[in-house]
Amino acid sequence: MAEYHSFSTNDAKHFADEHSDLFGEHSKLSCEKLGEDSLNLVFRVSNDKGRSLIVKQALPYAYCVGESWPLTIDRARIEAEVLLKHSKYCPEHTVEVLHYDTEQAAILTEDLKEYRMLRTELVAAKPYPHLAEQVAAYLANTLYYTSDFVLTGPTKKQQVSRFMNADMCLITEDLYFTDPYCNHERNNIHPELRQAAQQLWQDEALQAEVAQLKADFLSKPQALLHGNLHSSSIFINDENCKMIAAGFGFYGPIGFDVGSMLANLLLNYIGHFGLTADAQQRQLHQDYLLQQVQTLWQSFASQFNQLMANECREPSLQNALYQQRFMQQVWADTLGYAGCELVRRVVGMARVADIESIGDATLRSQCEHKALKLGKQFICQRHELSNMDQVLTILRYLQ
Amino acid sequence: MAEYHSFSTNDAKHFADEHSDLFGEHSKLSCEKLGEDSLNLVFRVSNDKGRSLIVKQALPYAYCVGESWPLTIDRARIEAEVLLKHSKYCPEHTVEVLHYDTEQAAILTEDLKEYRMLRTELVAAKPYPHLAEQVAAYLANTLYYTSDFVLTGPTKKQQVSRFMNADMCLITEDLYFTDPYCNHERNNIHPELRQAAQQLWQDEALQAEVAQLKADFLSKPQALLHGNLHSSSIFINDENCKMIAAGFGFYGPIGFDVGSMLANLLLNYIGHFGLTADAQQRQLHQDYLLQQVQTLWQSFASQFNQLMANECREPSLQNALYQQRFMQQVWADTLGYAGCELVRRVVGMARVADIESIGDATLRSQCEHKALKLGKQFICQRHELSNMDQVLTILRYLQ
Repeated sequence: MAEYHSFSTNDAKHFADEHSDLFGEHSKLSCEKLGEDSLNLVFRVSNDKGRSLIVKQALPYAYCVGESWPLTIDRARIEAEVLLKHSKYCPEHTVEVLHYDTEQAAILTEDLKEYRMLRTELVAAKPYPHLAEQVAAYLANTLYYTSDFVLTGPTKKQQVSRFMNADMCLITEDLYFTDPYCNHERNNIHPELRQAAQQLWQDEALQAEVAQLKADFLSKPQALLHGNLHSSSIFINDENCKMIAAGFGFYGPIGFDVGSMLANLLLNYIGHFGLTADAQQRQLHQDYLLQQVQTLWQSFASQFNQLMANECREPSLQNALYQQRFMQQVWADTLGYAGCELVRRVVGMARVADIESIGDATLRSQCEHKALKLGKQFICQRHELSNMDQVLTILRYLQ
Repeated sequence: MAEYHSFSTNDAKHFADEHSDLFGEHSKLSCEKLGEDSLNLVFRVSNDKGRSLIVKQALPYAYCVGESWPLTIDRARIEAEVLLKHSKYCPEHTVEVLHYDTEQAAILTEDLKEYRMLRTELVAAKPYPHLAEQVAAYLANTLYYTSDFVLTGPTKKQQVSRFMNADMCLITEDLYFTDPYCNHERNNIHPELRQAAQQLWQDEALQAEVAQLKADFLSKPQALLHGNLHSSSIFINDENCKMIAAGFGFYGPIGFDVGSMLANLLLNYIGHFGLTADAQQRQLHQDYLLQQVQTLWQSFASQFNQLMANECREPSLQNALYQQRFMQQVWADTLGYAGCELVRRVVGMARVADIESIGDATLRSQCEHKALKLGKQFICQRHELSNMDQVLTILRYLQ
């Protein structure tokens, strides 16, 4: 397997067999092609004893769009290396990478078949009490240990170069920060939201804030981000959850990862105004979500604060007042990027099932308006909303 | 000349002859070793018709310190490429690079023998009315055209990688932001300033501000900086001035370059309280310097604003309110980094002739206290001092 070619199921089978001891000597292997990922080929390779692994191969274009959207296959290396790096700092909640091949742009990982995709579970209103606590641990550890608080200048610079990930970042730059704020052909806007979207395109005060968030996305390499931490990148079961799909990983603003996760909980919170008709059931699930939102930030902040206090290897950054301001800035970024995620999921190209699967167009539109309103508020008031209690109050009274 | 070896005068002669047409076929070349640069070998190669060029070769250690301080020779490539890049956007004020050789870490440039080093001239109180205007043009153009306002995400990322310059940045990280704020053995403190320095080492509020400036130096790749823009990196004559010595160039905060230049004018302003005994003469030179300080910022800001308004190629950053805030942030950074330069030149390792050449220890100490006081004020009040008029008032009443 020298030159790159896209894998057949047979190739995937050989790749998995060659690079893992899991299957043993005399296993009979089978392979199925899964369609779960939009930019890659994904295969499940299983033996006759019920053991299985996942083979993921990057295509030189976006799988979901086609060959008109070229993408470097180097993103497979980046994805594998981000996951390995994150595993180092949070093995419990990072999918295990067993092998990767830069030539073939292929990654061999554990199969999380005992896990379910978080988005599916949240849409079905299935609560997992440990969700936020575990994601917070993942965020605090992976982001802290790849930051200037730990790495020397030269090491950090070398890492930043290694994870530039220009192609994938460009997708985010466009889909997150550009398209939703202008009348872009890639946008995917339901007719009921069109007027509100048009207001967005005229709102120069809001656009100034989004410009700042985009500029920081471009030029604030604080830590090695997952880069795409939404509910479809998290797999969960009753004990644990694991992050997958780090193909958008790069050195960026810490608040981007935290905000993406926060917004995905909120998209589900908002979606259930339309998804769950029974008021009591809905209340129950939404209370669970608000609890998770609160825990996500508080647990993240508390762990990150602990790490800054106890594990800071850069003497200049050990200053307590600086660290306090640093967290305040991460908080503001978190709200800002959460706001961008809320907006782009109702005005941009990529939709989420939390809202798209609402059958009734009027109900769905009400939810979209809520998401848009909340997103704008987060973006514009991220420096004024100084703590999570204020945010929770806004959420409880969201109209 | 395959493998790297440090140049003899003979090597330098051949290098210059081989890579330039300046000397012609039958020139008789001579070569002298100049001692002007602290991290490199510098040679002047001349022919018998009075034409000359400069050969600069990076040593694998700091020339001024010795072999105990290793430095990558890749900095010669970086220096040459920064100068070529800056030449593209401001040829008038960037020294011309004729050739560079990455193997030998050697650069061939024009010889600025019709120019004088700015620091020497300023110490001698020689005024150049065009100084600030020209440096402002250099800053505005080189910084603007290498920023996110112009480059696409992928191009910028590729450039950031190319100019990481980890070794040289580490020197700045240490000498600018770390050493002066603790009792570091590298510090070079006159006894009369020791008590004030000790106060600095206790000042946690100030250190929190310096931590922020250092964090931004590490993680705010706004534009391709010169990286070491002090009065010894500028050569000047009655018509023109040119920037040399870009070996510290990297992608960093715009205010770092602007602030370094600003601080160097102010170090001279302060130095003349001790250098020039005659009150009228001193007043004349200091008025000239304040005029230059004002012009430096106003002309830089006005040109950068013009460029943002007319030459912004990134649609998201065309927003007028964002651009206004961007300049406000560059201003605050400029003051902050100017403050760091003022402090480190009286408390840190590297001194400047503007103050060191004051013969009388009491007078010199008074100047050092002024520089330290002003530096601290800039660092701590950079967000409150909202315009140049306020700064000029402080300077006029500096005690």
